[in-house]
Amino acid sequence: MITRKEKPLTPNLRAIRRLAREISQANVSRLILVHGGGSYGHPLARQYRIMDGYKDPSQIMGFSKTHQAMVALNRLVVDALIHHDVPAVAVQPSSCILMKSGRIHVMEERPLRRLLEMGFVPVLYGDAVIDSDAGFSILSGDQLVSYLALRLDADHIVMGIDVDGLYTADPKTDSSARLIPHVTLEGLKRMQHKIEEAKVVDVTGGMLGKVLELIPAVERGIPTIIVNAAKPGNVYMTLKGERVVGTMIEKGETFA
Amino acid sequence: MITRKEKPLTPNLRAIRRLAREISQANVSRLILVHGGGSYGHPLARQYRIMDGYKDPSQIMGFSKTHQAMVALNRLVVDALIHHDVPAVAVQPSSCILMKSGRIHVMEERPLRRLLEMGFVPVLYGDAVIDSDAGFSILSGDQLVSYLALRLDADHIVMGIDVDGLYTADPKTDSSARLIPHVTLEGLKRMQHKIEEAKVVDVTGGMLGKVLELIPAVERGIPTIIVNAAKPGNVYMTLKGERVVGTMIEKGETFA
Repeated sequence: MITRKEKPLTPNLRAIRRLAREISQANVSRLILVHGGGSYGHPLARQYRIMDGYKDPSQIMGFSKTHQAMVALNRLVVDALIHHDVPAVAVQPSSCILMKSGRIHVMEERPLRRLLEMGFVPVLYGDAVIDSDAGFSILSGDQLVSYLALRLDADHIVMGIDVDGLYTADPKTDSSARLIPHVTLEGLKRMQHKIEEAKVVDVTGGMLGKVLELIPAVERGIPTIIVNAAKPGNVYMTLKGERVVGTMIEKGETFA
Repeated sequence: MITRKEKPLTPNLRAIRRLAREISQANVSRLILVHGGGSYGHPLARQYRIMDGYKDPSQIMGFSKTHQAMVALNRLVVDALIHHDVPAVAVQPSSCILMKSGRIHVMEERPLRRLLEMGFVPVLYGDAVIDSDAGFSILSGDQLVSYLALRLDADHIVMGIDVDGLYTADPKTDSSARLIPHVTLEGLKRMQHKIEEAKVVDVTGGMLGKVLELIPAVERGIPTIIVNAAKPGNVYMTLKGERVVGTMIEKGETFA
């Protein structure tokens, strides 16, 4: 959404600036932002198979390039936020996180906590990160959001994507896809089960995979809202606590 | 040196590219690079008095801007290194370091260690960093070099500056200034004493102040060479172990 998906290393500056303005106007206290890789990180990560871990020396330059592409995208995001008077501070996941078998193993989070306390808006991102088992790995923005929400005891998670929320099928290719306005933890797990049992690909177009990363945060009782960040005003309204079209994920009643 | 000192936020791209090429050609294993702020970090840090710590809310945006300026400069350095096939990886000091009263208090250094072991060239820099006493502070590249050399047990420190080394006076303003080709720890401490006793400004044009940061590393026995990085070939030759005009700092004999 903040990049042109079809063009490598091409930002969607209009979207970046609009979202920066919406975030500025919402003026939320204690906000952490996490963005993905879009056409910056993903094509390079794929080309050099960074997510497979370290296999051969040709990947070394690939790791450097993947990380550097993310730094470049992050810079555009933080610049736009600062331009709109948001005290944004880039926090580099690869500098403070060590992964293990593709999962966050340790994170030095004290600088991040302090930044939040002082009123800064830390901006993190999906990144190429050192992995003590695999050599290196890709840390998705989704995994990072879930981890940070748990560690820092978040009140809410807002996930901005380029469709209206979680659908019964991929809305980009299947016209019968219906938006799921509300789902409980149980509901999510049932969907996960169905996919695993049937050994089929994620029919939701990858969205369920993203959402499943958030299960630990939902289990903790942190309400999560998925909204279409491509629609102007949605992020602003959601940050202000107003309801917009989207998918609400809540722990739900245990007897439900 | 890698920026135009007289022009804020203006890089010296020719110097950055030449140094990247020299570093690439020297092909040193287990190399960490640290660069300063030049006309990127310094003017903003000064404007918002970041080095004085947090005093009033108007500094908050200043911290964001100072840090972001350093990210921008670092990006140019790392891009140039990658362009010359150096597997450079930006490591953000503010993401993994917490200072206390202006000194490094804690640093998550595991990602950095792993990067080194795998053959990457981590690139750090002077940065605006959170300080548990002062709110925030400025971490100089010099303090960072000394700290990393001790923690990671460096073999050598090479300090590239824009004059030939440590002089008896400021070579830029005093034509009687003589280059000091060799100095021991004792010699350095004598110079420090003289300055402190006389309560005068650093007659060496600030260079002694930079060098004094390195005392802990010199005490540990890590030889340090100061060379003129503005002269093409100097950094390459020094990295290759060849002697060039400069100042050599060694622990020296205790009876010296």
